[in-house]
Amino acid sequence: MREEKDRRVTCQDLDITGGFWKEKQELFRRVTVDAVYDRFEETGRFEALNCSWKEGMPNKPHIFWDSDVVKWIEGAAYFLLKQKDEKLEAKVDDLVGRMEKQQWEDGYLNSYFTAVEPEERFQRRTDHELYCAGHLIEAAVAYAQATGKKKLLEIAEKYTALIDRVFRQEHSAAFDTPGHEEIELALYRLYEYTGKESYRELAEYFVDTRGTSDRDGTYEFTDQEHMQSHLPVRQQKTAEGHSVRALYLYSAMADQARIDQDEEMAQVCRTLFENITRKRMYITGGVGSTHRGESFTFDYDLPEYTAYNETCASIALAMFCRRMWLLEADGRYADCAERAIYNTVLSGVSLSGDSFFYENPVAADPARNAFNASRAKGLQEHLPILSRVKVFDCSCCPPNLLRFVGSIADYMYSVSGNTIYAHCYMDAEGEMETSAGRMKLKQETGYPYDGNVRIITETEGTCAVALRIPAWSERWKVSVNGERVEAQPRKGYVFIEREWKCGDCLELELDMGIRFWESNPRVIDTCGRVAVTRGPLVFCAEGIDNEEIPLRDVRIDPKQEGVVREKRLEGTVLPELELDAAVREETDELYLTPKKKRKTVKLHLIPYFAWANRSVTPMTVWLLEEIRPENK
Amino acid sequence: MREEKDRRVTCQDLDITGGFWKEKQELFRRVTVDAVYDRFEETGRFEALNCSWKEGMPNKPHIFWDSDVVKWIEGAAYFLLKQKDEKLEAKVDDLVGRMEKQQWEDGYLNSYFTAVEPEERFQRRTDHELYCAGHLIEAAVAYAQATGKKKLLEIAEKYTALIDRVFRQEHSAAFDTPGHEEIELALYRLYEYTGKESYRELAEYFVDTRGTSDRDGTYEFTDQEHMQSHLPVRQQKTAEGHSVRALYLYSAMADQARIDQDEEMAQVCRTLFENITRKRMYITGGVGSTHRGESFTFDYDLPEYTAYNETCASIALAMFCRRMWLLEADGRYADCAERAIYNTVLSGVSLSGDSFFYENPVAADPARNAFNASRAKGLQEHLPILSRVKVFDCSCCPPNLLRFVGSIADYMYSVSGNTIYAHCYMDAEGEMETSAGRMKLKQETGYPYDGNVRIITETEGTCAVALRIPAWSERWKVSVNGERVEAQPRKGYVFIEREWKCGDCLELELDMGIRFWESNPRVIDTCGRVAVTRGPLVFCAEGIDNEEIPLRDVRIDPKQEGVVREKRLEGTVLPELELDAAVREETDELYLTPKKKRKTVKLHLIPYFAWANRSVTPMTVWLLEEIRPENK
Repeated sequence: MREEKDRRVTCQDLDITGGFWKEKQELFRRVTVDAVYDRFEETGRFEALNCSWKEGMPNKPHIFWDSDVVKWIEGAAYFLLKQKDEKLEAKVDDLVGRMEKQQWEDGYLNSYFTAVEPEERFQRRTDHELYCAGHLIEAAVAYAQATGKKKLLEIAEKYTALIDRVFRQEHSAAFDTPGHEEIELALYRLYEYTGKESYRELAEYFVDTRGTSDRDGTYEFTDQEHMQSHLPVRQQKTAEGHSVRALYLYSAMADQARIDQDEEMAQVCRTLFENITRKRMYITGGVGSTHRGESFTFDYDLPEYTAYNETCASIALAMFCRRMWLLEADGRYADCAERAIYNTVLSGVSLSGDSFFYENPVAADPARNAFNASRAKGLQEHLPILSRVKVFDCSCCPPNLLRFVGSIADYMYSVSGNTIYAHCYMDAEGEMETSAGRMKLKQETGYPYDGNVRIITETEGTCAVALRIPAWSERWKVSVNGERVEAQPRKGYVFIEREWKCGDCLELELDMGIRFWESNPRVIDTCGRVAVTRGPLVFCAEGIDNEEIPLRDVRIDPKQEGVVREKRLEGTVLPELELDAAVREETDELYLTPKKKRKTVKLHLIPYFAWANRSVTPMTVWLLEEIRPENK
Repeated sequence: MREEKDRRVTCQDLDITGGFWKEKQELFRRVTVDAVYDRFEETGRFEALNCSWKEGMPNKPHIFWDSDVVKWIEGAAYFLLKQKDEKLEAKVDDLVGRMEKQQWEDGYLNSYFTAVEPEERFQRRTDHELYCAGHLIEAAVAYAQATGKKKLLEIAEKYTALIDRVFRQEHSAAFDTPGHEEIELALYRLYEYTGKESYRELAEYFVDTRGTSDRDGTYEFTDQEHMQSHLPVRQQKTAEGHSVRALYLYSAMADQARIDQDEEMAQVCRTLFENITRKRMYITGGVGSTHRGESFTFDYDLPEYTAYNETCASIALAMFCRRMWLLEADGRYADCAERAIYNTVLSGVSLSGDSFFYENPVAADPARNAFNASRAKGLQEHLPILSRVKVFDCSCCPPNLLRFVGSIADYMYSVSGNTIYAHCYMDAEGEMETSAGRMKLKQETGYPYDGNVRIITETEGTCAVALRIPAWSERWKVSVNGERVEAQPRKGYVFIEREWKCGDCLELELDMGIRFWESNPRVIDTCGRVAVTRGPLVFCAEGIDNEEIPLRDVRIDPKQEGVVREKRLEGTVLPELELDAAVREETDELYLTPKKKRKTVKLHLIPYFAWANRSVTPMTVWLLEEIRPENK
């Protein structure tokens, strides 16, 4: 049974061969891998691994620096997996060597505590030790898979053994579960890679102990919700607290539900997924509405200008979704993952690949930011920055993007029995094991800019291919070798089962018409407004493309088809939408009698992920809706 | 010349005889005078006058407590002016007696510095000494006018002499101009009451020195804009910083422009008035968009839920407007004063007269407040409270309301030459001096709920009455003794000049139709929305009157007349508007395809000032505008 459900197809099995993700991965290989490395080098994150810092020296190690280092290693591993690069591998090996030296006799490994407060190890729940350990485990698995080198894996397993002893057997740490989740999903990953039961048991222990321990404190400034410890996880029904922590936890819970066939846990995951996607998620797949605690807030609270929408949170949302579709087939999981990936995740990195957003608001008002910056520090408010930067003090997002883009093919397929599920469409080729034998598939598509997807079988076999029909696609067509196939989707997938010959071509045509979306009437911030999408991409209007148009006041009638053009931006070609729109007349009055008179203008939109790549300029995703009488 | 322009008509000259303001004043006389007194007594503000506090005792005096005390005295004075009340007068005299005892030999008077830091007197610009002194002066004048008792005035003049010496002659204080303006306008008031030139000179000195002194510091957390000291006042073109400070300063500047016939200063005042009313003022006459520094922000920045709109700031705006119409006839000043008075100022007090708002937002979301309150302190944001309270730590607004309502007749008339200007309409009777002799007028009106105003002459004389035509009145009619008079307004006033007989009746009929207003397209918060007014009142929708209607999503078509009903609320009768409105269908989806289908509902609105008098419930002033095809 379990084996039936659980044939993941990963970036190990698939090569990205072209299109959108090939371009992105090549940019990352060429620019981002080094850009993140160089910033980390400059800021002392690698130096910290030597554990030679002493009071009074610059670059005091920080409690989460280790996670930055190993996330960079994990990212590098995915690029090494596909292309030998001795220089890059040497950099990783150097870092691994430093970690090996640093590791304590008993397995402990943490550059901050080792150098700064060795007596405080495993004493403070809020200080990210197990979070760093989780990322170490993930990096170790990825690097072993990429290069066959096992040293980092040995380091990680040695440390894991210590953690198991201290936390699960002896309970000798000062707390019971980590303040920042991550190790749970990493332990499931290590379990699935090594098959060792103790890792599964430790993961389960951490997941099920959460919210039950009196010894589990929190920061002084916050509450137990912040760390999802307000209730035992099986009793949680709404997404609460720090959004990245929450989604890393839910990812582990989904792993647990699948691996243990734990239906109760599966139901908790479904409930949390529903709460997020029906009440607490931006249309861009951003989550965590507020910078205060980087957290989820309350149902339907989705303010635009102050949306926190951390890049890492949307990565984590995609991770949770993938684990949900490994648990059970439902197109909504991949719909949600795509929403996050193509919008907020990609907004996190510049088109040039070397600058990053931590926060991804859905509207930008440079006038407010400028005023805020002009004020005395004591009067400033927290606002999202409007221009990407090379590195952050808390620089979790850049290496997270690196590992995410490097392993994007993880999001393509899964196998259940003799069915191959195609979740997210991209150009890639690879083999996968089904209950009816191995199948090799090659996928070609212009996705996300074009809705045609061709899957060519490169082996023979009798199996089903389940094609996901994204919820945004009103019409769609499936054909095999040019012949239309009639099929009804079940839970978001159409199933094409046949005896495939080598060279058969399964084709899906999705509806790439421009679509308009309202938000639920309870979302008080966007009532009266519509968002514009095409395919999986949310679009936005930027001031730089729409000079003299007041973006918050421009009105669009959703009864229009719009025009799609190509736009060249920072070395890539993007779709640009042109819509008929209307604006009110300019006036000097502050309050005035409503007039129906409108000036007709053309409004230009670009994909949301490409915003803020040229200058600091106003931006909005949500546009006023106004149905003009002549279109009635 | 000056005498021509400057015949103010004040609450000294006028008795409120009925209608809206009689009801309000009686409520204040019955409830508010004592309610404010009792809270101040409980919190130790009067005890502090004894200057017997020692370290370790409770109720440590606060730097601005003196201002609370004397503002209460000033308020009490206006009620004593119209009706003898021995008990109340005894309370005031007791407080005056304590101040007399406390006053230093050299005239210094400040209960905080005297009791807590005597060596620090006149050393810290930010610590409100001259602000307290200004309010003392105002209270002293009002109490002398009300009762003929001069003791408080002597105390105030003695202190003023010290201030003049220390600041204008010796420059022996550690700073040159007050951190919180107020003394400037108070000195002009004292000058106009006593005729002593030194007070005028000291006022001028403080006004013109502002923004020129290196010795004038500010708080560590803020900037010179906070105290309007970023530029010499004559160079200031935009309203900046703490909104109450700003408007008390501008009030003094308008006094100076009038008293000194200083055209340069008049122009500065006009420029600031324009900046406020065309770019930085809520439709409710609220100003100061943010709690951060309680300050003005930048042009067109008028967020709804977080609007700070301090009650005192709107009182100060009305004060500035009145001083501007004393300077020159332009109906926009009274339009603005009325906007502030009938909306944000009155919103500052409950219909029961004993509870107060400091902040007056234009929308309320109890869900956000509840979520915020549920969070750990370190994660909470500043939000306006949604239910009025009896007293604040910084309790400037309640006594400010007391003195404002007590002296509301100040806002009725002014005289210039032989023209009597009628600015704000209310039921009152009184005499005023014109260049053509004394005129006694009795005004009767149902204002602000009814637009008919009758002014009956109770003396004979040849003079002009200039009736203000509010900008919101699209149509209007003037008649004398029932005969229609044709007249074109000039700068917002129609002039009716004739030989008045005793008992002549000048009648004005204003248009009390329901009106709808859009904001300027640059106000990004309210694009696509309309506000509803009737007469000078802005209306709002509260959840309690509109159950199951999502207030942010309900749509109204401004092409409708609406229905006006009477509503009984907390012992008074208010107009309630009923509008045809439409709502979208309820849905569980977060994002959905726009549908035209609407459910028709009746939306009920009450005057904005009456919001939050029943329960904590959603509220909004700005409603979505949607022109329905059938109304095209």
